[in-house]
Amino acid sequence: MLITGLSGSNGLEVGLSRVVNKELLPIEMKLFPDGESYIRFVKDVRGEDLIIIQSLYPNQDKKFFELLLAVDTAKDLGCRRVITIIPYLAYARQDKRFLDGEAISIKTLLKTLSFIGVDYLITIDIHKEESLKFFNGNSMNLDPTKLYVSKLYGVVKNPVVVAPDQGALDKAVKLSKLLLNSTYVVFRKFRDRVTGSIRHEVVDVDVSGRDVIIVDDIISTGGTVANIASYLREKGASNIYVVCSHGLFVGEALSKIYSSGVSRVYSLNTVPLPVGVEPIDITPLLTEAILSLNLT
Amino acid sequence: MLITGLSGSNGLEVGLSRVVNKELLPIEMKLFPDGESYIRFVKDVRGEDLIIIQSLYPNQDKKFFELLLAVDTAKDLGCRRVITIIPYLAYARQDKRFLDGEAISIKTLLKTLSFIGVDYLITIDIHKEESLKFFNGNSMNLDPTKLYVSKLYGVVKNPVVVAPDQGALDKAVKLSKLLLNSTYVVFRKFRDRVTGSIRHEVVDVDVSGRDVIIVDDIISTGGTVANIASYLREKGASNIYVVCSHGLFVGEALSKIYSSGVSRVYSLNTVPLPVGVEPIDITPLLTEAILSLNLT
Repeated sequence: MLITGLSGSNGLEVGLSRVVNKELLPIEMKLFPDGESYIRFVKDVRGEDLIIIQSLYPNQDKKFFELLLAVDTAKDLGCRRVITIIPYLAYARQDKRFLDGEAISIKTLLKTLSFIGVDYLITIDIHKEESLKFFNGNSMNLDPTKLYVSKLYGVVKNPVVVAPDQGALDKAVKLSKLLLNSTYVVFRKFRDRVTGSIRHEVVDVDVSGRDVIIVDDIISTGGTVANIASYLREKGASNIYVVCSHGLFVGEALSKIYSSGVSRVYSLNTVPLPVGVEPIDITPLLTEAILSLNLT
Repeated sequence: MLITGLSGSNGLEVGLSRVVNKELLPIEMKLFPDGESYIRFVKDVRGEDLIIIQSLYPNQDKKFFELLLAVDTAKDLGCRRVITIIPYLAYARQDKRFLDGEAISIKTLLKTLSFIGVDYLITIDIHKEESLKFFNGNSMNLDPTKLYVSKLYGVVKNPVVVAPDQGALDKAVKLSKLLLNSTYVVFRKFRDRVTGSIRHEVVDVDVSGRDVIIVDDIISTGGTVANIASYLREKGASNIYVVCSHGLFVGEALSKIYSSGVSRVYSLNTVPLPVGVEPIDITPLLTEAILSLNLT
């Protein structure tokens, strides 16, 4: 078994290859002056099981095509099985036709990956687990809740876990269960699919003097989290923590979040994180998953 | 039959739909804040033959994924046949393993397009025609030589047509045949595949006092063309013209070319062209190709 990382691996292959004690495969990667990606396997991979790590954070399309090149080439060169670890899976929020005629982008992405030769797909906290049905092969969606807990335990006291919307309810329930003496609440978000405007319908809960944890899978522009944090601050919340799996923090997202009264922001290191975000290392979770596969 | 263009169509769908007198299909396209593409068909396409125009100039990977979304969705929505016109096909220069272990990028790209549902692929002056074998479906590679001639005829007199390397020889021969009283020469280019350095081996030809046309399929950084033009200028060439199919002109390419003594640069409008390049419209060539398909 060999392990390699492409341009979006966020460096995870290095620690991972040490922990599971498997060889790190170097891959030559470059960009031509016009922006075309180039990849080359500089070592023989015939007969090997190969783990390729590539997270699909922006520029997601470039990373996606690079992944197609790597998988197609690995198979061409005689790799036995190709296992791809995609810590952050782009396009997962477009998982159905919210309006007639829309692309189901995650379907296009996942079916292409299976076609090109991915035998096993490992991802973390995909937006909707049922989207994995579009991948024609074996897959695993890793639950990061225990990683959240290992960071938050002892930091927060008697917290209220807040799900920004119905989609994050499961996450909030799981986290709440693993944190002793915690309760959870859900905000209801209504998104107008035509204009894109968002309205939050808040629920009554006494957060006065209590620690609050806002939990979500993806933070992009940070608008939702900032709105909710401001509301909670008004209601007298003590410390407000934000924990997410995939902290994209597009543009001024992080400033917006801290300005709204948040004390601390945590994210898995499925994507590169800016200063001001406390990283939660996913290596233990990936290690467990790899070991469960019994690769040779 | 319907015609539509995606973000890389370079506007070609508008004129084309008028000339062939077929309906222009509007598609809603946008980018989410994190850079993910979104597309939506706002009209019913069931049972229709659909022509999608998308050229793959930089950012080529973004345009490629958008094309996958469009084709997959069109088929999902019940389109009968999907014909894609890709005036400029990215990754065509990486058409074999020049070094062991390299990706054959054009293979990955073309096999993915056939998998996702493209029934018919039309392109113009692909770097190597035999690459189309990687596309599992019908395809057409359109020869632009007569378009070149329609622009150059009367402008150049008794010209020498120059192929910058062996790969452009066929183009030079064809162009030379259609231009009366012209001759052709080939420069030999040797590219070191490891270091990337390029050396030109020039051939003896008397260009003194004659018009010269340098012809190539793709101009990217313009280095090759500029080197050759300088050499020809030293040898006493009169006017030097450059004609190409896909003028990418990355960075300072165009300045470099004009500084080397070139009088005028022509390119097909398969890609958006900067000021200083005389566009050659491909609409007539595409019209002919579409009409030959007998679509309903």
